[in-house]
Amino acid sequence: MASPVASAALKARIKRPSMLKKLCHPEDLLPHFPNGAYIGWSGFTGVGYPKKMPTYLADHVEKNKLQGQLRYSLFVGASSGAETENRWAALDMIERRSPHQVGKNIAKGINDGRIKFFDKHLSMFPVDLVYGFYTKDRPNNKIDVAVVEATEIKEDGSIVPGASVGATPELLQLADKIIIEVNTSLPNFDGLHDITMTDLPPRRKPYLITNVEDRIGTNSIPIDPEKVVGILESDYQDQTLPNSPEDESSQRIAAHLIDFFEHEVKHGRLPANLLPLQSGIGNIANAVIGGLDKSNFRNLKVWTEVIQDTFLDLFDSGRLDFATATSVRFSPAGFDRFYTNWESYHNKLLLRSQQVSNSPEIIRRLGVIGMNTPVEVDIYAHANSTCVMGSRMLNGLGGSADFLRSAKYSIMHTPSTRPSKTDPHGVSCIVPMCTHVDQTEHDLDVIVTENGLADVRGLSPRERARVIIDKCAHEVYKPILKAYFEKAESECLRKGMGHEPHLLWNAFDMHRALAEEGSMQKVKLW
Amino acid sequence: MASPVASAALKARIKRPSMLKKLCHPEDLLPHFPNGAYIGWSGFTGVGYPKKMPTYLADHVEKNKLQGQLRYSLFVGASSGAETENRWAALDMIERRSPHQVGKNIAKGINDGRIKFFDKHLSMFPVDLVYGFYTKDRPNNKIDVAVVEATEIKEDGSIVPGASVGATPELLQLADKIIIEVNTSLPNFDGLHDITMTDLPPRRKPYLITNVEDRIGTNSIPIDPEKVVGILESDYQDQTLPNSPEDESSQRIAAHLIDFFEHEVKHGRLPANLLPLQSGIGNIANAVIGGLDKSNFRNLKVWTEVIQDTFLDLFDSGRLDFATATSVRFSPAGFDRFYTNWESYHNKLLLRSQQVSNSPEIIRRLGVIGMNTPVEVDIYAHANSTCVMGSRMLNGLGGSADFLRSAKYSIMHTPSTRPSKTDPHGVSCIVPMCTHVDQTEHDLDVIVTENGLADVRGLSPRERARVIIDKCAHEVYKPILKAYFEKAESECLRKGMGHEPHLLWNAFDMHRALAEEGSMQKVKLW
Repeated sequence: MASPVASAALKARIKRPSMLKKLCHPEDLLPHFPNGAYIGWSGFTGVGYPKKMPTYLADHVEKNKLQGQLRYSLFVGASSGAETENRWAALDMIERRSPHQVGKNIAKGINDGRIKFFDKHLSMFPVDLVYGFYTKDRPNNKIDVAVVEATEIKEDGSIVPGASVGATPELLQLADKIIIEVNTSLPNFDGLHDITMTDLPPRRKPYLITNVEDRIGTNSIPIDPEKVVGILESDYQDQTLPNSPEDESSQRIAAHLIDFFEHEVKHGRLPANLLPLQSGIGNIANAVIGGLDKSNFRNLKVWTEVIQDTFLDLFDSGRLDFATATSVRFSPAGFDRFYTNWESYHNKLLLRSQQVSNSPEIIRRLGVIGMNTPVEVDIYAHANSTCVMGSRMLNGLGGSADFLRSAKYSIMHTPSTRPSKTDPHGVSCIVPMCTHVDQTEHDLDVIVTENGLADVRGLSPRERARVIIDKCAHEVYKPILKAYFEKAESECLRKGMGHEPHLLWNAFDMHRALAEEGSMQKVKLW
Repeated sequence: MASPVASAALKARIKRPSMLKKLCHPEDLLPHFPNGAYIGWSGFTGVGYPKKMPTYLADHVEKNKLQGQLRYSLFVGASSGAETENRWAALDMIERRSPHQVGKNIAKGINDGRIKFFDKHLSMFPVDLVYGFYTKDRPNNKIDVAVVEATEIKEDGSIVPGASVGATPELLQLADKIIIEVNTSLPNFDGLHDITMTDLPPRRKPYLITNVEDRIGTNSIPIDPEKVVGILESDYQDQTLPNSPEDESSQRIAAHLIDFFEHEVKHGRLPANLLPLQSGIGNIANAVIGGLDKSNFRNLKVWTEVIQDTFLDLFDSGRLDFATATSVRFSPAGFDRFYTNWESYHNKLLLRSQQVSNSPEIIRRLGVIGMNTPVEVDIYAHANSTCVMGSRMLNGLGGSADFLRSAKYSIMHTPSTRPSKTDPHGVSCIVPMCTHVDQTEHDLDVIVTENGLADVRGLSPRERARVIIDKCAHEVYKPILKAYFEKAESECLRKGMGHEPHLLWNAFDMHRALAEEGSMQKVKLW
């Protein structure tokens, strides 16, 4: 097939003539995707991922009934779009995946055992990649091909990403071959990124960032132009979804947190404009940011992983001075608003690689306030962020542990209960023992539910249990959790093993009641 | 009582005349220790702790039968000496303790519920102290009195510590009053320390360390001289113990690790002189360092928490270029050797605060090789470092998670079994599920026992389980662990929750067999 003709829009985005010569059709690139290939994609939390090549490959498999015959190891900074990786999963095209994913089919593939998935701290995943840890059994210690979306290619061949940076610098660093999708339907994001590459020890350097707005890198990602095997013109949009709305429960959680921040300011442990905020994804996170928008706090700053719609409100009300992250994942309406008001936002935003946005080095230095939502928290302040009933993977660890380990304030916010199939309060999010531990008791400072806030700083495990049950548990679970704790305490103290009392053979009885009788409320007391 | 007369030895150590005027007897200082006081001590892993004042207070309680009437909150960087804090515990003088301890009576006090203990990452403990997190319910957000050992007081009043730095800078920063024990029986350690103090965010700065030998601070710890309420002359020795000897099992573990390092060098993932080594305490750690001493590696460097005797051998054989830590904890014979050959060692050693020695920022940057011994590891590569049977506290988390989270290579080494009372292999150190999780599956790269080495980098949980059981478990436990895993795998895959398969209600059956029948071998298979 003849090479495609570059549109005027494309020519405006590709400043290096030799790159224009590499313009091609997706089908020309098929030979770079043999069964078993190791593939890297740009993208993070469903923005900035490649769309044209992955969609072509999915079409190819579907049309030619190649399900199960073209299977890849797929590495992306975090999740990409449902129409790409989730479709790949449905077509049995994913052999191995790391470090994070979102999508029904991909989760099903993982939990049915077809997809080998591992979740690593998002700050470490790109570094371990560059160390060669994930390609150690490959002949050249490399990944075969990186497919990345760009909004511009500069004269030196370097790439300006779109709405995310993620692990793209490291994937490009480690790839044998590079395919670039230049997306002409997005604005040119030039100037919105601060790009740093990864040196290997003993030659790594400090990240000289002491303020959220500090720049230490370049505007674009340098690449080896000789590695580029093809350029595609793309006009596919990032497929984001509308935000989950706040509900009463999440607003109450937000109110408890804002009270807490005011308390800490009053006692001199936080400056009046707080410290840089990290906020996860979801309706509680939205409510917290929404709550700040109604608060008296001013001159806020954000150091986080993902910037969402609610931050636009904070900018608009003049409360937020600057926000930096590794991706801006707005809703479709949010992106409209962002692009329309580009001039008023673009100087207040900066995107960095996930290694930097989630860097423990910087998170500790800045004294970030880290907030995340778990699957469950236990009475001693361990948290499960990944595996339901200890076994079923949801999305992956993400950056939760990067932030919760290193933040000045490590906060877990969760509703006290979730519904089961038969009981609106069938699942208590406060449990005797987490069925999977991603955040340890040594990491968390504050647990908050709609019922209240447990400040566990400096408390021994038994003190923690009392305050978490008292402040955070739902009324229907308070007596249940108390019964567990008191029985465990009296048995373990009697045996001289009462530091963190557990009834080890009964620690998951509430989970068993849920599995066998439909609700944790039906547990037989100890 | 009349003020004591300063000895010539003491005068040589105290360069600031106004400090000599504060020389006093321990009994003069008793009023600074009311019941309920918050107290900080210098010291780390049993070296550099104050001895005279704590011993006097213990004598005072014992003589006057004040057990239970003088109880303190005691903060020390890590453990101090048995004759001080362990004796305090025996005399019921400890109300609260953090973040680490060693001693029969103190462990008993914690597990019997008399001592409120919490263990925090050693890198974070001093920072949380300065944040005021552990004194938030006190009127002035301070600790009442810090008692620190010094080997010199400089003209500006600053303190030269002894064989450890630990959390002393932060304890001095946060204390209302300061008591200094100047130890004239130790050599003057001036020049062996690199001291940095802790700024609060948003004014924290990068640690500009890119080599283990880099100095970024001062030789001594600055203090506010007006806070000093008393100076004591002391000649009490640090009470260290001889090292645990290597055994055949630990030598086999060391051999596996050295093979692994050679493999990594061969494949270009490690430089020929490796990367800075971190090594814990105990006979396996000694065997690993001993193994390196017989290896072909040269120009080694050490970035660790505690420097032990075996490092002296590495220096002597010319294999080790430089070692830095927060304490040198030699055996009595090791200290003799160190002091006798001071000239040949002192330029190759540097002591830093525990916040720096254990700093994730620096550990990541340097690409440290982190090695630790756990209580137990599970088939999915979580590890328990603290609580036996999920409940009974041993010593505390220490720096294990500081290093294992951030190291380039995160390595857990353990014998495959330990004896129970009735069975020499009654306890498998590889278990289906850890009864307490301090290191998560997202943190560990390598598990090694005398049987072999499991390299779990980039593996999914089910792959990890197979290789850990195969390489690490003891022969008698292989079939048992395989039976658990295979049953869990088939059940969970069938239910569509097979990412990390568990039989949740049977996850601790091996522990139950140990508790009820004396050996994990007696477990009823699933």
